[in-house]
Amino acid sequence: MMFASDNTGPVHPKIMDAVMGANDGYAMPYGNDAITAAARDAVRGLFEAPEAAVEFVATGSVANALALACLAKPWDGVFCHRTAHVEEDECGAPDFYSGAKTILIDGADGKITPEGLEAAIMQCKGRGVHGAQPGPLTLTNITERGTAYSLAEIRALTAVARAHGLATHLDGARFANACAALGCSPAEMTWQAGIDAVSFGGTKNGCMGVEAVVMFDPAHGRELALRRKRGGHLFSKHRYLSAQMVPYCQDGLWREMAVAANARMAQLVQGLARVPGAHLCHPAAGNLAFIEVPRAAHARAFSAGAIYYLFGGTLDDGPADAQLRCRIVCDWAKTPEDVERLLAAWAG
Amino acid sequence: MMFASDNTGPVHPKIMDAVMGANDGYAMPYGNDAITAAARDAVRGLFEAPEAAVEFVATGSVANALALACLAKPWDGVFCHRTAHVEEDECGAPDFYSGAKTILIDGADGKITPEGLEAAIMQCKGRGVHGAQPGPLTLTNITERGTAYSLAEIRALTAVARAHGLATHLDGARFANACAALGCSPAEMTWQAGIDAVSFGGTKNGCMGVEAVVMFDPAHGRELALRRKRGGHLFSKHRYLSAQMVPYCQDGLWREMAVAANARMAQLVQGLARVPGAHLCHPAAGNLAFIEVPRAAHARAFSAGAIYYLFGGTLDDGPADAQLRCRIVCDWAKTPEDVERLLAAWAG
Amino acid sequence: MMFASDNTGPVHPKIMDAVMGANDGYAMPYGNDAITAAARDAVRGLFEAPEAAVEFVATGSVANALALACLAKPWDGVFCHRTAHVEEDECGAPDFYSGAKTILIDGADGKITPEGLEAAIMQCKGRGVHGAQPGPLTLTNITERGTAYSLAEIRALTAVARAHGLATHLDGARFANACAALGCSPAEMTWQAGIDAVSFGGTKNGCMGVEAVVMFDPAHGRELALRRKRGGHLFSKHRYLSAQMVPYCQDGLWREMAVAANARMAQLVQGLARVPGAHLCHPAAGNLAFIEVPRAAHARAFSAGAIYYLFGGTLDDGPADAQLRCRIVCDWAKTPEDVERLLAAWAG
Amino acid sequence: MMFASDNTGPVHPKIMDAVMGANDGYAMPYGNDAITAAARDAVRGLFEAPEAAVEFVATGSVANALALACLAKPWDGVFCHRTAHVEEDECGAPDFYSGAKTILIDGADGKITPEGLEAAIMQCKGRGVHGAQPGPLTLTNITERGTAYSLAEIRALTAVARAHGLATHLDGARFANACAALGCSPAEMTWQAGIDAVSFGGTKNGCMGVEAVVMFDPAHGRELALRRKRGGHLFSKHRYLSAQMVPYCQDGLWREMAVAANARMAQLVQGLARVPGAHLCHPAAGNLAFIEVPRAAHARAFSAGAIYYLFGGTLDDGPADAQLRCRIVCDWAKTPEDVERLLAAWAG
Repeated sequence: MMFASDNTGPVHPKIMDAVMGANDGYAMPYGNDAITAAARDAVRGLFEAPEAAVEFVATGSVANALALACLAKPWDGVFCHRTAHVEEDECGAPDFYSGAKTILIDGADGKITPEGLEAAIMQCKGRGVHGAQPGPLTLTNITERGTAYSLAEIRALTAVARAHGLATHLDGARFANACAALGCSPAEMTWQAGIDAVSFGGTKNGCMGVEAVVMFDPAHGRELALRRKRGGHLFSKHRYLSAQMVPYCQDGLWREMAVAANARMAQLVQGLARVPGAHLCHPAAGNLAFIEVPRAAHARAFSAGAIYYLFGGTLDDGPADAQLRCRIVCDWAKTPEDVERLLAAWAG
Repeated sequence: MMFASDNTGPVHPKIMDAVMGANDGYAMPYGNDAITAAARDAVRGLFEAPEAAVEFVATGSVANALALACLAKPWDGVFCHRTAHVEEDECGAPDFYSGAKTILIDGADGKITPEGLEAAIMQCKGRGVHGAQPGPLTLTNITERGTAYSLAEIRALTAVARAHGLATHLDGARFANACAALGCSPAEMTWQAGIDAVSFGGTKNGCMGVEAVVMFDPAHGRELALRRKRGGHLFSKHRYLSAQMVPYCQDGLWREMAVAANARMAQLVQGLARVPGAHLCHPAAGNLAFIEVPRAAHARAFSAGAIYYLFGGTLDDGPADAQLRCRIVCDWAKTPEDVERLLAAWAG
Repeated sequence: MMFASDNTGPVHPKIMDAVMGANDGYAMPYGNDAITAAARDAVRGLFEAPEAAVEFVATGSVANALALACLAKPWDGVFCHRTAHVEEDECGAPDFYSGAKTILIDGADGKITPEGLEAAIMQCKGRGVHGAQPGPLTLTNITERGTAYSLAEIRALTAVARAHGLATHLDGARFANACAALGCSPAEMTWQAGIDAVSFGGTKNGCMGVEAVVMFDPAHGRELALRRKRGGHLFSKHRYLSAQMVPYCQDGLWREMAVAANARMAQLVQGLARVPGAHLCHPAAGNLAFIEVPRAAHARAFSAGAIYYLFGGTLDDGPADAQLRCRIVCDWAKTPEDVERLLAAWAG
Repeated sequence: MMFASDNTGPVHPKIMDAVMGANDGYAMPYGNDAITAAARDAVRGLFEAPEAAVEFVATGSVANALALACLAKPWDGVFCHRTAHVEEDECGAPDFYSGAKTILIDGADGKITPEGLEAAIMQCKGRGVHGAQPGPLTLTNITERGTAYSLAEIRALTAVARAHGLATHLDGARFANACAALGCSPAEMTWQAGIDAVSFGGTKNGCMGVEAVVMFDPAHGRELALRRKRGGHLFSKHRYLSAQMVPYCQDGLWREMAVAANARMAQLVQGLARVPGAHLCHPAAGNLAFIEVPRAAHARAFSAGAIYYLFGGTLDDGPADAQLRCRIVCDWAKTPEDVERLLAAWAG
């Protein structure tokens, strides 16, 4: 009953097979191999962006850091939501790679509003040379609160950035879950909605460890490759990294796994009706949700073997009937039975 | 007949099996899993250093960069050989992570001498606050020229650094090949010889992509972990990275593969007697050698399907009997037949 | 009627005389001169800190950046008020020099509260290796809103930092104005109140351009000197920079000029009673105040030749009777007549 | 008898008068004042470059660092002579500001040759993504060895850089001395000779502390201004910094002082004929020379009160008749009598 994160689950067998399959004799290093070429083409095909610059890395933090470093100047501010992964969970990697600093924007349900973005940009512009300069906007879909930006919302935000001449990035650690939730294509959620660069995540969605940095303007390609190398992220035996992306992009495996994870979360949310005192903190669009249940319910779940993160308190530090918030994440491999067990434990 | 690098070869089956074996159900992310704990212990055991700080990364460039960033201040000079990988082949990653700058020292056969190091340090000290300050020494064994520092040579160099209060690092991209060549233990080649930190390479020696940064003073542990995270190098599904190191360290697989690679190179060097005009440029201690043969011999080898790097010229830009230098690298999977085929092609 | 900033005014004649006086024959460069030695001693004497590391620079931004770079690690968060100069007015210089990132804390009247600081530190600690690590606290006195931290408030804040093992810095761009307001000594407002490092400002208070970075733990001295040099801030003809600090620290000139500036602001605040609709936005402890008067009053002042900054609107974009906020700053050279002229113009 | 450096001498009275003259009432800060505008125009006029971006800073190190940061990418190599100030005397400031690393080129008399530059660029290009990328060329005139590049030599070197698409920078710490030596105009030695950016030095040539960063392509202006601010180098009371440049550029004061300093060095070099055993190590084109005289001669000079730097030995550590190298620098204020005294002491 592991619900702590979607990076705790197993790798999909098709991905593992691809990695094994890459272990056949000799190949040129540093991405100069046929598998990497095929993986690049697969990603470009998926995004309907035949010209896009595509590089593979092993973590989402560096995917975001490299993309933002290519879009921001060292003296820029990077506009993001207060709860963004680039701000809270990457130990400053984007700042380290770009030199820029994050400018935090508040907003309900982990989402920035066009008004909030406009205000932040104007405040930035008011400082002239003395403050950080307006830089790129970075959005996250699925957001860190488990909600999803609609295509219209993304378009509205990128329009504000465009109007000020600012570039845009999408943190797609849960890109597939967002596409599945919106029922849209990768192209619709990115360049067709005004996004310049995307971190296309595989790791949280059934891969072993691979993210594609996709920059729709190929002019960024050389800088992206050099920043990756300079960061120590260019794999020598690159084929094993790339190999994961081929099956992931083919035959809709990326979407299939996301659909499955989202379905488990939907099942969980629906089941909350059976849990006394249960409260969903934000609309759960994908495979991630913040939920409040009484401390006693958490206690039952933990003793039943559930693992997930609690916020704002611990199992033992308060009254049994007090509400305590937790974060639940479903990965592609979760079963309906897993979810039922958690619900049953909570319901008591 | 791929002799271009030891990172072009296949991964050893035992390593692949370990990666597959890691794909069993759920595990905590970011290195908080049992496999990573076991891998850390395996490395500490191998180095007879139970207290050492050990972190795993996927590339040698970042292993070097992180180790040097922990040992150097941003205003330091890092003393290295002019041909060092940290200078020539990492696109400035060590400079990026540490802020320090390399100070190049010449020396025959890719090796620094104590006199050369002493002179470089004294020149540095002569500049006071105006120049780079004396910082860590970094050595490479097997060197970039295919030679090996003896234990006595390492001790003599670290003694010079010690006398000036400078820390020491060993770039061990071919650590196993050096140990095999010297017939020594990992401890003898590192902390027992005055080395403070080592990049213990696995990737070039039969792994998929894993290097261990080993800092013998555990006080560096927290900084090492934070620098890795800040660089975007902390894997979420960490178990697949760590899993490679367990069999690698066990039952001497690391040494077994290095012995095999070194043996192939020894076979090649011995066979040069049969190649008219062949000349070994530096003593080949490990699995890497620079060799001169006539251009015509290279032409025969290339048409027979050999792949390796030429230096100082190309197949077509000069007289057939002119000597042309190449770099030959043998990996663990090379066979005696492979080597014979290359020799035969050269011999003509 | 220039009230835009305290850096728009003339340099005090005694300071100019000292600079002229330094132009006597030859002296060793880079701070190895008698005047610099005297200036260092003068600052140490003023702070009753005979062992303190003291270096001179020409701008407050780099004074703050160097002090924080010595106290923070690249992966740290620097705790400051949302309106802090290091956040809003230095184009990221502290981030550039230290690698650290600011963590913004809200608080009325430009002041952090112990509760606000404690909460920010705990939130930081909750993220483990994934977020910025708790780093130094930096306070500003006089604050950016014109208010002053009392000695008790400073002690309470540094106590929170101490309890978490965090270092503390004081941005003293208006240090003298704060000392004058609190009627305390430099030592009482700094090391005796738990401050580890201070940017002791001269530029805004009658000097030409000089700030002293004072680190009470002399162990930081070498790092401070090297970071200054590396930032390109070590003056070769250093005597002309240092010379300003000698008269500034002697005979209480630093305090005399601050007392004068504060007195003009007190006169202005008192006079607001005569200005219909005038409102003081924050208690004005020093030489800086945010004041609201009707747009028509601003219009009269501007046509009378007053120069100062408006916020949240312009002279022409709204009703004449609408309140419009401005920032007024008095420097040492302001006369009672200057202030009366502004009040008269506002009163109409 | 101070011959240690040209930054040990007094400031020219006309420069001091200008600084005093700037202390008249109030002016807008941060360079938004009339004096700064006049100084910018004066520099543009001097360089016959009405469109050039011009910013003022207080040290030569940051002038070089900012110019190179605008011309180089973080992954670039900066080509310079092994003895360049940016390599040996700025504690890595150019690396810190640009992220780039220096690539050292040897050459007699402190000068790079086109062949040496071409070879360094080609070696750099040979490494692909693995090494530093070819970046800007930086030259120094007067060189660190006291020699001068002729206009033809500068043109030949910038032509090589141009052919590879590389930008070019001139470190002009002794720009005026070089112009005086070559009898050319600032334009002839810079943009007309293929130079893109210059650090136009005032400090070593009679100013208090001011250098102009001149970028002939005004498109670099915004980046230059932001990098200066981010480095903490934007003076608030900017008029006192700018004021020095107005008289310096007017009526040929800059050249007048350089001519005087060069004349004193010519007098010294000519006088060496009277000094037994004296040897000029490099042709002395400007106001700087390396000279060998017997240790006993140095001893006589030091006891007569001379101050200058010795290299490769000390007064007391060898035979009296052994040759010992020293560096002699003449500033604008040196008198013929000063030089005669030194020669007399050496001659004995």
